[in-house]
Amino acid sequence: MPGYAAPVDDIQFILHGLLDVSRQDIPGYGELEPDLTAAVLTEAGRIAAEVLAPLNAAGDREGCRLEGGAVRTPAGFRAAFDEVKAGGWTALDCDPDYGGQGMPGLIGSAVSGIFSAANQSFTMYQGLTHGAYSAIHAHGSAEQKARFLPRLISCDWTGTMNLTEAQCGTDLGLMRCKAVPQPDGSYRITGEKIFISAGDHDLAENIIHLVLARIAGAPEGIGGISLFIVPKFLVGEEGTLGARNGVSVGKIERKMGIHGNATCLMRYEGAQGWLLGLEHKGMRAMFTMMNEARLGVAMQGLAQAEAACQAAVAYARERLQGRAATGPANPQGPADPLIVHPDIRRSLMDQRSFIEGARAFALWSAMLLDRAQRAGDGDAEGLISLLIPVLKGFLTDKGLEMTVQAQQVFGGHGYIEETGMSQFLRDARITQIYEGANGVQALDLVARKLPSDGGRHMAAFLGQVSAFIADNGGDAALAQDFLAPLGRALADLQAAVRYFMERGAAEPETVLAGSTDFLHLFGHTCLGFMWARMAKVAQTAETGFREAKLATGRYYMARQLPATALHLARIRSGAGPVMALPAEAF
Amino acid sequence: MPGYAAPVDDIQFILHGLLDVSRQDIPGYGELEPDLTAAVLTEAGRIAAEVLAPLNAAGDREGCRLEGGAVRTPAGFRAAFDEVKAGGWTALDCDPDYGGQGMPGLIGSAVSGIFSAANQSFTMYQGLTHGAYSAIHAHGSAEQKARFLPRLISCDWTGTMNLTEAQCGTDLGLMRCKAVPQPDGSYRITGEKIFISAGDHDLAENIIHLVLARIAGAPEGIGGISLFIVPKFLVGEEGTLGARNGVSVGKIERKMGIHGNATCLMRYEGAQGWLLGLEHKGMRAMFTMMNEARLGVAMQGLAQAEAACQAAVAYARERLQGRAATGPANPQGPADPLIVHPDIRRSLMDQRSFIEGARAFALWSAMLLDRAQRAGDGDAEGLISLLIPVLKGFLTDKGLEMTVQAQQVFGGHGYIEETGMSQFLRDARITQIYEGANGVQALDLVARKLPSDGGRHMAAFLGQVSAFIADNGGDAALAQDFLAPLGRALADLQAAVRYFMERGAAEPETVLAGSTDFLHLFGHTCLGFMWARMAKVAQTAETGFREAKLATGRYYMARQLPATALHLARIRSGAGPVMALPAEAF
Repeated sequence: MPGYAAPVDDIQFILHGLLDVSRQDIPGYGELEPDLTAAVLTEAGRIAAEVLAPLNAAGDREGCRLEGGAVRTPAGFRAAFDEVKAGGWTALDCDPDYGGQGMPGLIGSAVSGIFSAANQSFTMYQGLTHGAYSAIHAHGSAEQKARFLPRLISCDWTGTMNLTEAQCGTDLGLMRCKAVPQPDGSYRITGEKIFISAGDHDLAENIIHLVLARIAGAPEGIGGISLFIVPKFLVGEEGTLGARNGVSVGKIERKMGIHGNATCLMRYEGAQGWLLGLEHKGMRAMFTMMNEARLGVAMQGLAQAEAACQAAVAYARERLQGRAATGPANPQGPADPLIVHPDIRRSLMDQRSFIEGARAFALWSAMLLDRAQRAGDGDAEGLISLLIPVLKGFLTDKGLEMTVQAQQVFGGHGYIEETGMSQFLRDARITQIYEGANGVQALDLVARKLPSDGGRHMAAFLGQVSAFIADNGGDAALAQDFLAPLGRALADLQAAVRYFMERGAAEPETVLAGSTDFLHLFGHTCLGFMWARMAKVAQTAETGFREAKLATGRYYMARQLPATALHLARIRSGAGPVMALPAEAF
Repeated sequence: MPGYAAPVDDIQFILHGLLDVSRQDIPGYGELEPDLTAAVLTEAGRIAAEVLAPLNAAGDREGCRLEGGAVRTPAGFRAAFDEVKAGGWTALDCDPDYGGQGMPGLIGSAVSGIFSAANQSFTMYQGLTHGAYSAIHAHGSAEQKARFLPRLISCDWTGTMNLTEAQCGTDLGLMRCKAVPQPDGSYRITGEKIFISAGDHDLAENIIHLVLARIAGAPEGIGGISLFIVPKFLVGEEGTLGARNGVSVGKIERKMGIHGNATCLMRYEGAQGWLLGLEHKGMRAMFTMMNEARLGVAMQGLAQAEAACQAAVAYARERLQGRAATGPANPQGPADPLIVHPDIRRSLMDQRSFIEGARAFALWSAMLLDRAQRAGDGDAEGLISLLIPVLKGFLTDKGLEMTVQAQQVFGGHGYIEETGMSQFLRDARITQIYEGANGVQALDLVARKLPSDGGRHMAAFLGQVSAFIADNGGDAALAQDFLAPLGRALADLQAAVRYFMERGAAEPETVLAGSTDFLHLFGHTCLGFMWARMAKVAQTAETGFREAKLATGRYYMARQLPATALHLARIRSGAGPVMALPAEAF
């Protein structure tokens, strides 16, 4: 069974070398000195390695069970959850006014990436609770905040998000779940929600469901949807638990992965709920959490790639097979370790160069999100809104690819569940789907984010990359290996933007047909940008770290970044080839 | 649960339009008139749809069980196996001298592709038996052939291949399994073999294990390995079943997919075996079956993509979500079907254009194999040996990608096992691994096949493509959409070959570091070649078929084939970026 070691040194390099966090003008960042972040990350790594990783495969094998209407999580989950709570990890980046520790979201993201790598199913219980916390924190009344936030922060109560129904996922305008106003100001919620992660379990004494529903008489479409707080157990004045509410689990789904997290069909039968935020503005309330939620999912995709890669490296070092092309590397042994073989090395370098670049992209994004939310920086808000679909789509698509590559290193042993390599792939697979399937991320990117504010945020990103290349042109160590390929990727991205701008208004299908390729072109450029910036700051790192970082970066620039040209070629082929075959002819 | 409809019309188009099979100068091909092949394929399609597909998901869910030392296959497998046997399907392309029907291997491949799409786990029992049949047919004594072939052909007895041991998969030189000669000319086999597909089951009265082992005193390495026939039950003079042999099942593996096929750890404890072929020439005997086996696995990868795509198309037609960018396509309904959306269409076209191109490549390869084996054509032998690793690696890598894309069309519903989309991916995943992991295919391609006979077979392939482009340059309907992109792919492939030739001898790691990219570059060029040839012959097909075929081909040429440039760029970056990071630094 694979172990897991948190990449503390690499995260520290990104936080302090690349992002220079403690000198950023963002509330709370001043405290983020290297010693502090190292202590937090190291302890998170210990919990991940000692508490969460050992439950990962067992949780996959055992799964969740529905017994007498209640979900039982896998053996050990409850004790581990209590340990995580006791360590204060659930409160890390929450508001001190309600019992949180007030650290930046950036640190919360880094820690959740570590926890997810060790055990994604387990960490989801906490992640969904954080989402509910954020929604109530942003939109709740003072009374709602006082009642719910402290217990969500401590994870004495957990949270869920109830959006999907059988007939609608992406297109929430088709929603049927109904809310009927009551004389006391509450609502009665009736309907079925599907695919509700952490919908029920035995880890906490109460579950606070956030439920999208349509108030009787509301407008059609997504403009008539409201958001409700629906506790599993009603909550009295002092936070005491009262009667069981009219919400129950219809079934739990048998699914490809994340078996340790219960994915439930939830039945609301006149359940008592309270409006969160404004009537008919439920979608807007959800959207304020979307960036945070999608960053979290991107982190999960990256985390599975990271965990799988660690296992693949260990196996490649230890498994003996064949001889190196340049002569035996292990002449005393019966064969050389796999890692001597260039095609194995290529696979490991694909994984490593993606993972380190993606980690930088994700943490940079988390910092932008803090800057937008905590420093009220409108430019950061615009930029992060543009980048989020790229981050979510690219990191999860590539994350899956990397788990496939890592599994492949194991040969037949990778196909056997015992080695744990299958689970990384199966768990990673959901990240491409939930929180908006990646096709929807691509749509959001080209149809909403790219043209928003007259394309100002896209121009700002292109300008940042362009300025970096110009500013560092004199650095001979960067020029050929980093700046030149980054410049080519940037030109490809600019050409794609121009192509869309010239055609978007007249040919909407041209833009949509190129949306996924645009997302990947953009994603590669972001990672190329991260790598060039990391190469610059790595020059002053200690020798071993510097050499490894530069070699890994050069690999990305030489072998992965040229994919931008392929994506541009596909985009430029337009909608014709995509739409030529009529729907009836399929 | 997805249904499955065999693509009979498309296979007929390939057999008769593209390959013109009945006029090929290959024994048995003269009979392959359209009416005959249509009847065979249609009936195979009926069996697939009515007998095999309905057992696919149930077999995945139930899996195989080891009870009292014997494996029980999922409910319904035995009855279905009997029905396939009774229909003569197991004898289709076997030698009439031993009870076979004597059809070309091409037809066997087409039918096994249909059966695998409907139920890969089930079809493997038959496929492995065919492998054992081929080995004994090629290397057995007259007495061995008479004793084993008729019952393997009828599948009254099934077969297995025993290569892998815990410490060695690809590197069979590390093998430990021992064979001790007995006075009666037989051997006593002792050792453990792992990952033995169909190693035990309840579908047949006997199982004929083909086992690689080292005769006591044999040379070290793969030059000391011999192949043995080891029946589960000893076989008397008249084919009567005797005592149980010293072979047993140690365990069955819990694995990612193909749950309906028992993957066994086999224990040989002084089991009685008989040498098949020559002492110490076991690897050579295995290699003669390798092309057939790898073609079969390529077919499986394609088959899972095909089955998944059919399900995705059906879902995309039926699931309502959002509105078309060009105005409502289903104005009476609450939303439009998914298939109106360009990014969904892109995904379906990715799948369709791969599947149809890959099917042509696979069936062309099957014909080349027949030409080599049945017509003794040395050029065909050389060409198919070159193409087999490309076929196996490319079709299974892309096959997996396509099952991911098909699953993605379903959104959250694709992640739930009930829809069957996860199984397509999980079953397809093994095809990248078994019969030589795809990295080993890439190694075989660049290190053995490419330079063999002074590069003559590679030159012959390049010459064929080049001649096709030259010969059809005057065809305006082909020139821009098909010949021009094919020409660019060909140039990329030629450039890669030159790059390897110039550096191969001095820099073996350069070639190895580019091996997987070379395999994919080559694979894309093969599909581009198939598409250009299909576009040519489709011009005389009836309107609907012609338009669909040309539209699908244009998509491949415009959106997929340009990947050759990316693979060339990666190859040309050399071994430097791949090998720069020392093994210790991972």
